[in-house]
Amino acid sequence: MRAEDDGLMTKYIYTFGDGRAEGNATMAALLGGKGANLAEMSSLGLPVPPGFTITTEACNSYFTNGRNLPEGLDAQLDGAMAWLEKVTGRKFGSDDKTLLVSVRSGARSSMPGMMDTVLNLGLNDDTVLALARESGDERFALDSYRRFIQMYGDVVMGIDHDLFEEILHEAKEEAGHEQDTDLTAAEWRKVIEKYKALIADEMEESFPQDPRDQLAGAVKAVFSSWMNQRAIVYRTLNNIPAEWGTAVNIQIMVFGNMGTESATGVAFSRNPSNGKRMLYGEFLVNAQGEDVVAGIRTPHDITEEARIAAGSDKPSLEKLMPESYEELLDIARRLENHYKEMQDMEFTVQQGKFWILQTRTGKRTARAALRIAVDMAESGMLSIAEAVDRIDPASLDQLLHPTIAPDAPRNVLVTGLPASPGAATGEIVFHPDEAEALAQQGKDCILVRVETSPEDIHGMHAAKGILTQRGGMTSHAAVVARGMGKPCVAGAGSVRIDYAKELFTILGKTWKKGDIITLDGANGQVLAGAVDMVQPELSGAFATIMQWADELRRMKVRTNAETPADARAARSFGAEGIGLCRTEHMFFEGERISAVREMILANTEEDRRVALDKLLPIQRQDFVELFEIMAGLPVTIRLLDPPLHEFLPNTEEEILLVAKSMNTDPERFRARLNALHESNPMLGHRGCRLAISFPEITEMQARAIFEAAVEAGKSTGSKVVPEIMVPLVSLVEELRYVKARIDAVAEQVQAETGEKIDYEVGSMVELPRAAVRAGAIAECAEFFSFGTNDLTQTTFGMSRDDASSYISDYIAKGIVKRDPFVSLDLEGVGDLVSIAAKRGRAARKDITLGICGEHGGDPASIHFCESQGLDYVSCSPFRVPIARLAAAQAAIRQGTART
Amino acid sequence: MRAEDDGLMTKYIYTFGDGRAEGNATMAALLGGKGANLAEMSSLGLPVPPGFTITTEACNSYFTNGRNLPEGLDAQLDGAMAWLEKVTGRKFGSDDKTLLVSVRSGARSSMPGMMDTVLNLGLNDDTVLALARESGDERFALDSYRRFIQMYGDVVMGIDHDLFEEILHEAKEEAGHEQDTDLTAAEWRKVIEKYKALIADEMEESFPQDPRDQLAGAVKAVFSSWMNQRAIVYRTLNNIPAEWGTAVNIQIMVFGNMGTESATGVAFSRNPSNGKRMLYGEFLVNAQGEDVVAGIRTPHDITEEARIAAGSDKPSLEKLMPESYEELLDIARRLENHYKEMQDMEFTVQQGKFWILQTRTGKRTARAALRIAVDMAESGMLSIAEAVDRIDPASLDQLLHPTIAPDAPRNVLVTGLPASPGAATGEIVFHPDEAEALAQQGKDCILVRVETSPEDIHGMHAAKGILTQRGGMTSHAAVVARGMGKPCVAGAGSVRIDYAKELFTILGKTWKKGDIITLDGANGQVLAGAVDMVQPELSGAFATIMQWADELRRMKVRTNAETPADARAARSFGAEGIGLCRTEHMFFEGERISAVREMILANTEEDRRVALDKLLPIQRQDFVELFEIMAGLPVTIRLLDPPLHEFLPNTEEEILLVAKSMNTDPERFRARLNALHESNPMLGHRGCRLAISFPEITEMQARAIFEAAVEAGKSTGSKVVPEIMVPLVSLVEELRYVKARIDAVAEQVQAETGEKIDYEVGSMVELPRAAVRAGAIAECAEFFSFGTNDLTQTTFGMSRDDASSYISDYIAKGIVKRDPFVSLDLEGVGDLVSIAAKRGRAARKDITLGICGEHGGDPASIHFCESQGLDYVSCSPFRVPIARLAAAQAAIRQGTART
Repeated sequence: MRAEDDGLMTKYIYTFGDGRAEGNATMAALLGGKGANLAEMSSLGLPVPPGFTITTEACNSYFTNGRNLPEGLDAQLDGAMAWLEKVTGRKFGSDDKTLLVSVRSGARSSMPGMMDTVLNLGLNDDTVLALARESGDERFALDSYRRFIQMYGDVVMGIDHDLFEEILHEAKEEAGHEQDTDLTAAEWRKVIEKYKALIADEMEESFPQDPRDQLAGAVKAVFSSWMNQRAIVYRTLNNIPAEWGTAVNIQIMVFGNMGTESATGVAFSRNPSNGKRMLYGEFLVNAQGEDVVAGIRTPHDITEEARIAAGSDKPSLEKLMPESYEELLDIARRLENHYKEMQDMEFTVQQGKFWILQTRTGKRTARAALRIAVDMAESGMLSIAEAVDRIDPASLDQLLHPTIAPDAPRNVLVTGLPASPGAATGEIVFHPDEAEALAQQGKDCILVRVETSPEDIHGMHAAKGILTQRGGMTSHAAVVARGMGKPCVAGAGSVRIDYAKELFTILGKTWKKGDIITLDGANGQVLAGAVDMVQPELSGAFATIMQWADELRRMKVRTNAETPADARAARSFGAEGIGLCRTEHMFFEGERISAVREMILANTEEDRRVALDKLLPIQRQDFVELFEIMAGLPVTIRLLDPPLHEFLPNTEEEILLVAKSMNTDPERFRARLNALHESNPMLGHRGCRLAISFPEITEMQARAIFEAAVEAGKSTGSKVVPEIMVPLVSLVEELRYVKARIDAVAEQVQAETGEKIDYEVGSMVELPRAAVRAGAIAECAEFFSFGTNDLTQTTFGMSRDDASSYISDYIAKGIVKRDPFVSLDLEGVGDLVSIAAKRGRAARKDITLGICGEHGGDPASIHFCESQGLDYVSCSPFRVPIARLAAAQAAIRQGTART
Repeated sequence: MRAEDDGLMTKYIYTFGDGRAEGNATMAALLGGKGANLAEMSSLGLPVPPGFTITTEACNSYFTNGRNLPEGLDAQLDGAMAWLEKVTGRKFGSDDKTLLVSVRSGARSSMPGMMDTVLNLGLNDDTVLALARESGDERFALDSYRRFIQMYGDVVMGIDHDLFEEILHEAKEEAGHEQDTDLTAAEWRKVIEKYKALIADEMEESFPQDPRDQLAGAVKAVFSSWMNQRAIVYRTLNNIPAEWGTAVNIQIMVFGNMGTESATGVAFSRNPSNGKRMLYGEFLVNAQGEDVVAGIRTPHDITEEARIAAGSDKPSLEKLMPESYEELLDIARRLENHYKEMQDMEFTVQQGKFWILQTRTGKRTARAALRIAVDMAESGMLSIAEAVDRIDPASLDQLLHPTIAPDAPRNVLVTGLPASPGAATGEIVFHPDEAEALAQQGKDCILVRVETSPEDIHGMHAAKGILTQRGGMTSHAAVVARGMGKPCVAGAGSVRIDYAKELFTILGKTWKKGDIITLDGANGQVLAGAVDMVQPELSGAFATIMQWADELRRMKVRTNAETPADARAARSFGAEGIGLCRTEHMFFEGERISAVREMILANTEEDRRVALDKLLPIQRQDFVELFEIMAGLPVTIRLLDPPLHEFLPNTEEEILLVAKSMNTDPERFRARLNALHESNPMLGHRGCRLAISFPEITEMQARAIFEAAVEAGKSTGSKVVPEIMVPLVSLVEELRYVKARIDAVAEQVQAETGEKIDYEVGSMVELPRAAVRAGAIAECAEFFSFGTNDLTQTTFGMSRDDASSYISDYIAKGIVKRDPFVSLDLEGVGDLVSIAAKRGRAARKDITLGICGEHGGDPASIHFCESQGLDYVSCSPFRVPIARLAAAQAAIRQGTART
């Protein structure tokens, strides 16, 4: 309830720690994911550094108030700090047992590295002495102080991070040190003075010494970072609404860098690459968390097993700090059992005391996700439906894409860390912007960086793979690439990158921008040139999840295919028939295109029939093959759809070439092209309109289908019941006219072969008129197939070929959230699909309804199809597994699952 | 009830005559128009030759039975003939008081001359002697017999009419006669023998002597003629369904050619050219009806008044046969009072006895129709609503089109009969097919024929005007041209046409195919070359009907106009505001196109604004003028709609020219054209999509509108409330984005001018998505305007520019009845309009709804708009009166009229 409503103050702050908490895990909307989890962990009695969360509501008030903290927050902050002083027995700003805090962002959904953090807050010229005294390590205290000034200067005061780094660099050079850790207390003191001078120089004000001012500044800065450029880009890419806002978490500082009994690390409860149940992670002794993530020092493994596998000589946590290791192991198990999800945890050991700083659902590869889901289901932690529901269907894509062929020759340039699986080939590019530009030109590229940062996200998104010189398995590059399902090789230390010259060298050999390399994310290899790839094996956990999904889903999944290769691939991916065989694709191959062109050049029906007679046996053979591959499964064949001019040569050069090869006058092509020219071919003389102008084309196709059905029925022993689909119908009279021709041919072929032919005739529903007239059309159509590509074009009045020029404006300006050609527009196009389904069923109760647009492979669109009770979705072969899984999830969530 | 149902025979025959009848005027569907009227007239006690009607149902059975007469008809025919013998005291086939009959077609709706007729049936070698005896005129009896053989041979037996004419021609030459009437009985006997020999020669069978066989053959022939080519064409042109069938009327023969006391003629109860209440028509003494219609002999006038006006020296019916004239006058009055419609009657005087053969609603010019309706309403015969409802709105078109300027110099080549009013200029063409070809090329032509026949209909349809050498005011050419609203000059006897050489001569001067002439249908003049035309005066009956229509109609009528000239014309036609001002049309004129092109070539928003600043004052002045012309009336202005490439030069030649004139590099145009190229511009970067990519264009237009509103408000003294319309909206977010810019500009202009600006922002509904999302869009739109042109294109997925290549196949194959771009597709596009209206109103109760596609001027579409309760229709200026009338009729018929 709001303050305005009842006179009570809005509660902006929720405390946690000391085995209790005001919030819990269900409150992520208000407390952010991190805050809700900290509260939950605290309630579970886990050793969470005590603290409190400022709500996302406060963040939203901050922005609606012109970037001012909401009224009342100040007092609540004071109260929370007092509570914190009480439970810790420390005092903020005191020169004895001084209280230091971290200030971190935490949105509803994790946005790693996108927003700002301030650590060691509370330090000033006085309290730093208290810290030195308490830790017994002046150097550490001063280092902490200078880190704080640097972070605060950057994050809160907006001073370029590099200016601080420059001072530090000079200090090291002056003193002749290599590492930060080599600096003495005295040297740190000098750095601190220079830092303070830099701030006074750059800003109107000096570095604030009052911890309370520091706190207010940091809270505002973290809120503000919700609206920074990289956070906005990340939200756009991940469909996170700006209205969510971020929470701010304030906790007491714990130090992993308080000597050799201290450490900090990150750990997953299972291996995020393959899903194996084991602690998996990295840590650094005497370090702060940022040191691990930044990838500057190469971290140690958590377990002995991992250390041995990696051939590392750095002692594992298991070995080095066995008690902390046991505590981590125990906490990981408890958290997994609690959340029923693989956990991604951050921990710190401060002088032997174990603290858990954060836990969240761990990002993982698709392969790992499958294994984890299957393992959890088999161990009883999840039901089968829960396990199936948990897999992101889109993530399967990475499993379906090629990996490097086992016997392909490998010219290995360098081996880094296998940070994200899969393989990719592309040209070298060094700048994210350039990667984006190349991708827009349709070129594959590999983004090569020293290390990546949130500013590089758009380039990582655009690249086919990522190679970094520095950073570990949990570095920014590795985490983000795994999330994107892109191959990544990280920490390939012997790669020397020169951004200015746009090249890198490996052991003296140079690779320039534009050179082709291949990444093998599975083993960390970087290979020269393009390398042969192979299809992945779809077994193990993948097969188990797919089998479960198949048992659960109601809708069938068919494929869009016309070549034998595609049809076979689709069957291997589990397709249950062909939902769309586009016969025009068959017309382009080999010699047949000449016969097609003869047909188009013909001036009379008689001449057209001569050309069509040449096509008949070829087309029949096409169908025989498809029917044989799909033996026993339904095959929907769409009659010729595109306008005829698409089959003619286009440029003068092509015309001359083709005319010569066909031994005809080029003028015939020019004249025909001229006659067939259309202002808007998308809305032109195509689909059933061709069948009505030239019924002889339909007759040839129908004959080929029926003769092939008879032949394949005999060869496979199972009767073929072809489904003939008439494209671009808007009037039932069109369908009736075409169906009459099909029926007549069926009778002829029955008479000729003496075989009874069963078949169905149906209609594409891809025009708005077909949708609203579905009742009338269903009287003549035995099935509908929603062609949502064209339906989207006509419903929006938007040519897919031309939309790219403005659709990016639309997304940038928030006018559409997602490209309607990728994910079905439920409100508009979806409404027409609903209307058509309703009216079609009213006219013909048992009408078969399917979808064959590219939306048939899009999970969100598949959920819609389930809600409409469609009988099947049809998609490209590689999306069949995605569709199988998405259909199962839709059924699970809508309560229509079969088991 | 059908025979199969209850054991009773279907009644196929309805008798009439002798002051009674089995049918009546309401039974036109079953008895045809002529049959129903004969029955009605007979019941009224009028002197109708007795007879009977075979129903249209029998005709339909005939066709469904493979062209066999239905079972039972034979017996009914016998019964009807027996009845006819009884009431006439005559006997069919008898050689004493022999009964002769006519056999005529008669469909539900009149199809003049399209089907076949057989006269004098019952004559044979024996009965001809009886006729000779009874008439006391052997020559007449033989002439009748040879006419019958000729007609029967042509119509029933299918022998070429010309072969008979050849025999007749030879006979006249041999005998040295000029006229048919000069032939003696002996000579006719020879002709008859030759006719019979011709038949025996051409056919397997000889001419049937048994009258009962003759009758059966004639009935079948008349039924068959329902399916002849010219009847099919006529039905297609006039939207008459084939399922209607034709009835057959069999009546006793009455002879207008039984000597000088006999005559035959046609008469209208009012003047069909100007509507004046008077008997108007023609007759021939001693002739059969076909002689009048065929235009071979020049007929006499009915009244003295008409004879004097025409300067004819042939005595009028009034003078020559005063008793018959009085009887005709009396019958005309009675029929008019009975039917409350102007009558078109055929009559025959046989040896002093007056017979009325047929009556039907008379075709008339639009001008006449208006005067008749007004006169009938003023005399109390009709109510005002009935009078308004009676006028065909489309017919007003002919009143709105130019006539020859009074002071234009006239080079009169020849003067014929003023057969159909209006004026037209075009190139001379002699063949109907060629007229059609020229029209398809967009060329105006005048069809010049010796006389026209039903086979020429398609050419008359294609031509702008018709000129004939022969025929009177009721000749085929005259009747059909008046029906079509096309100017016609008939019977221009001094024109000598040579079809073979494709020329005509007038007094030795030659005019060739392709030469330009002008027809003045108002006075029958044929003028050399093109002549200045003027707008008609819209006063008198026209103004009265319009005023009545305005009082009755509920919907407002606005116009689509952007030029001051069009806006003024529309106001003079009664437009009540502008429903669509297409601002892009303003961009093409004069110097402004250069600024538009500069704007398009600009690479930055800044450069675009520089160019837009040049356009602002011009655009503002455009709006000031429109607001001033429309002072006090609403003006809806549509923001820029077409894709930008439409404003650029297209060919290389144009590019060079324009680049030179703009003093810029042609490469800039080529590059921009290339960048702006679209595969489907209709579905491209246009409408509000432009406004979103380039909001500065919207801002300029909004500023021009608001500044003009302030200025015109001051100059006219009545506040201007502009309605700003956003085109091509499919998402409410689009409208919201554009509206925000408009609102911001409104605030600026208010601040700058200190004037409060009232305005409305609304949306075109021209995409299917806008229709289904109308609820959401209405939350942001104060009005909707249905753009049914684009809505038809997208709903059908049919490009208007490309559809002509197949739409003719569609009409020919019966797949669509009418071009959906001409008359709104109610089932599909109309359904979307309904959905949008319903959803829009649900979201915003008082939303204003209008239509601004070309359907806004189509009467059938206007009826639909009334049924949907739209607030207004908007159409091109010349269609405003049509829309006013159609809106009134829609209100009358739907019970929503205001008075």
